[in-house]
Amino acid sequence: MKLSADITNRLKQAAGPGGFSDDAQEVAAHTTEWRGRWSGKTALLLKPKTTEAVSGILAICNETLTALVPQGGNTGLVGAQVPLHGEVLLSLERMSRIRSVSASENVIIAEAGVILANVQKAAADADRLFPLSLAAEGSCTIGGNLSTNAGGVAVLRYGMTRELVLGVEVVLADGRVLNLLRSLRKDNSGYDLKQLFIGAEGTLGIITAAALKLFPRPHSYATVFAAISRADAALDLLNRLQDATGGLVTAFELVSRAGLDLVLKHIPGATDPLPKHRGWFVLAQVSNPAAFDALPALEAGLGKAMEDGLVVDAVFAKNERERKNLWLLRESLSEAQKIEGASVKHDVSVPLSRIPEFLATADKAVRDALPGARPVAFGHVGDGNIHFNIAAPPGNDAALLAARDKLESVVHEVALRLGGSVSAEHGIGIAKREALKTQKSAAELDVMRALKRTLDPNNILNPGKLLPDA
Amino acid sequence: MKLSADITNRLKQAAGPGGFSDDAQEVAAHTTEWRGRWSGKTALLLKPKTTEAVSGILAICNETLTALVPQGGNTGLVGAQVPLHGEVLLSLERMSRIRSVSASENVIIAEAGVILANVQKAAADADRLFPLSLAAEGSCTIGGNLSTNAGGVAVLRYGMTRELVLGVEVVLADGRVLNLLRSLRKDNSGYDLKQLFIGAEGTLGIITAAALKLFPRPHSYATVFAAISRADAALDLLNRLQDATGGLVTAFELVSRAGLDLVLKHIPGATDPLPKHRGWFVLAQVSNPAAFDALPALEAGLGKAMEDGLVVDAVFAKNERERKNLWLLRESLSEAQKIEGASVKHDVSVPLSRIPEFLATADKAVRDALPGARPVAFGHVGDGNIHFNIAAPPGNDAALLAARDKLESVVHEVALRLGGSVSAEHGIGIAKREALKTQKSAAELDVMRALKRTLDPNNILNPGKLLPDA
Repeated sequence: MKLSADITNRLKQAAGPGGFSDDAQEVAAHTTEWRGRWSGKTALLLKPKTTEAVSGILAICNETLTALVPQGGNTGLVGAQVPLHGEVLLSLERMSRIRSVSASENVIIAEAGVILANVQKAAADADRLFPLSLAAEGSCTIGGNLSTNAGGVAVLRYGMTRELVLGVEVVLADGRVLNLLRSLRKDNSGYDLKQLFIGAEGTLGIITAAALKLFPRPHSYATVFAAISRADAALDLLNRLQDATGGLVTAFELVSRAGLDLVLKHIPGATDPLPKHRGWFVLAQVSNPAAFDALPALEAGLGKAMEDGLVVDAVFAKNERERKNLWLLRESLSEAQKIEGASVKHDVSVPLSRIPEFLATADKAVRDALPGARPVAFGHVGDGNIHFNIAAPPGNDAALLAARDKLESVVHEVALRLGGSVSAEHGIGIAKREALKTQKSAAELDVMRALKRTLDPNNILNPGKLLPDA
Repeated sequence: MKLSADITNRLKQAAGPGGFSDDAQEVAAHTTEWRGRWSGKTALLLKPKTTEAVSGILAICNETLTALVPQGGNTGLVGAQVPLHGEVLLSLERMSRIRSVSASENVIIAEAGVILANVQKAAADADRLFPLSLAAEGSCTIGGNLSTNAGGVAVLRYGMTRELVLGVEVVLADGRVLNLLRSLRKDNSGYDLKQLFIGAEGTLGIITAAALKLFPRPHSYATVFAAISRADAALDLLNRLQDATGGLVTAFELVSRAGLDLVLKHIPGATDPLPKHRGWFVLAQVSNPAAFDALPALEAGLGKAMEDGLVVDAVFAKNERERKNLWLLRESLSEAQKIEGASVKHDVSVPLSRIPEFLATADKAVRDALPGARPVAFGHVGDGNIHFNIAAPPGNDAALLAARDKLESVVHEVALRLGGSVSAEHGIGIAKREALKTQKSAAELDVMRALKRTLDPNNILNPGKLLPDA
């Protein structure tokens, strides 16, 4: 795509003071995906600072049929933020103002470009928790979090990003501003339009600000690492702990012996809490509120589960240091796999009760497809979200990378057969457009395309992303 | 509207065995709103039993441009379920099958016509809670609950109906079945289409089944009735109790002295727990999980709030009988007002911190508009949802009813000025179409109308409901 000088000038003008960049290094940082998986180019990098500037830019783009790609922190994992065809790149990074924080209402209003960690910090400064938390939180932005309906480590207790949103401000394809920035807890006044834009990867409108829910801060944690008797004991154990605590479990992570061994091999300081056990483990954590400690409930629950044969052995964190050591095991899984060699990753989900079947079936299917491949599954049991990663056969990264497409389709096929999804939390972008075709019915794809035509009739908003070609 | 014999026969055929009724009494029960506020008529009452039958009916309606009105339990409060112009009436009552219950996954799949109380019971039989609870639960249906995004008494803890939905099965205007009946906790595979149909009052598609979330059952309750020092102490107290319990507060209701006095006057068995206090009260309840009792936390929280001047006095329920007596005060408010005489009711919401300002301002505005009128406000503080009811001047129901429109616009105006909504939980239907115009921007109404045209191009689905005339 090439822009005329006239359109370029009009767009620069609309973007306001400091609202564009020609600096090659700065542009490159925006057009390259951070893992180097996709690389794009842009006719013009725009960095508007206000909603009005975004509105002006979109009005011009729509009038001149100029395609644009919106971008937050450029941390997405499916390529939705990459301008592959020279589109105008609309970075929201300068819309970084926190407009308001209300501790009494438990609401924060942040512009799209606010970095997630800064939202967390503003909430903490008001003695509140903003629970969205994920690996990229130091650089991803709230606009991107909403546009991808980000998941992360606190979904079990607080839900996906969608469930944390009270209102949004959106610029429509034609430049009109849709002010849905309400902070009401209950509002049944017509269609809930904000839902359209959450998770739409910038294809239906540009989110410029959001009103988000805050929560009481956890005061401390009760944490346990347990060896379970078999994979399907995990869900039963989770349900018991939820019953015991009234749903206060904030993390419940499944870890395999294969994954644990990789961490022990590669991560300094990692120690094996339960060296005798070769099967599956769970790491469970309850956040303690101000008035009581959930540890006795957790201990009683584990004790009973042990009597009933669900749990084989368990280690409780007795202090903050021990708690961090247990979490190091879970949080280093990706890092350990990286050190071990190449891996192919998946972000699938299945109905909760199908997790054990998925693990067994996908494991076999992958080993059949590539002898020597080593599946290293871990995931959020309470969310049905399995990060089913496959490490290369020892010393043979090339074989794994050559088989990538085949392995992906094998794993996706198993997930779909069990009623699952090819994208639990990362989104579709360009990485999974084809896989989406196999997951969705013709009617569902038709309605998705009809929404796109309705809200972006000129197809200027992130064209070629999310929706598969007809 | 008059149907040709040919269309009538085709529709009866499509509805399947037992799929229609000509019985005058049965038809009348469906065309009249239960309070007698709206009365309609229908060319044909259809009662399909399967999704396929609904599909066949809609295909014919769409082809022949025949309008229809969907109906669940006919308990709606805004007239959305009433066929005002002789439309075909599509009752989902015979789609009353619970398709599955999974305690381990915490999912129930119910057809649209299942009565809410039956969903609650099926969940309880599996030792789980389906938390949606409202006055009409013995006759309203899940399809209607989803179509109105019903609220009720458990929203503070579990959210509106929208937040309880994992998946839906929907028949589109042209008869195609959109199977979104997934039970995944995480699924970022494209636009979240189910959101379109929740709260759309049957104007965008017909919901035929839903996959719904279940929760651990509460094991007992800790309950307190407290006199607060001023209305704006309520939110502060709620935040303290949420902090103490980690968000386990399941009810937090505001009651005025005027409301309490009406209950004491008219309801047998009601006794005044705090007769010395003339101001505002709250009724707060925490649901106890299996492993601990939240009463000590509640007592400590109230004690501290008393020291800090937020709470003046408090009575804790020491047993189940006392707990029921406290709840009788809250639950009899509507009944007591009804015995007292005519009243005009509102279902508004405002941002949480504006509740005290709303109460004071609306109170004065109503008394100015109709001298002698007696506002009796109560509501869900944690939801910002105030049921701002106005009792007639003593012995003068006629004056109140004559002033109904004026009072409604006065109350709505105050709510909107404070960033609120004219419909917190009841919906729009035909009752609030005009009020909606004053709440929504032109852009928002445009997008709503565009969605309607996209999904129902022939305007056959509940025409004239929800959307205001252009």
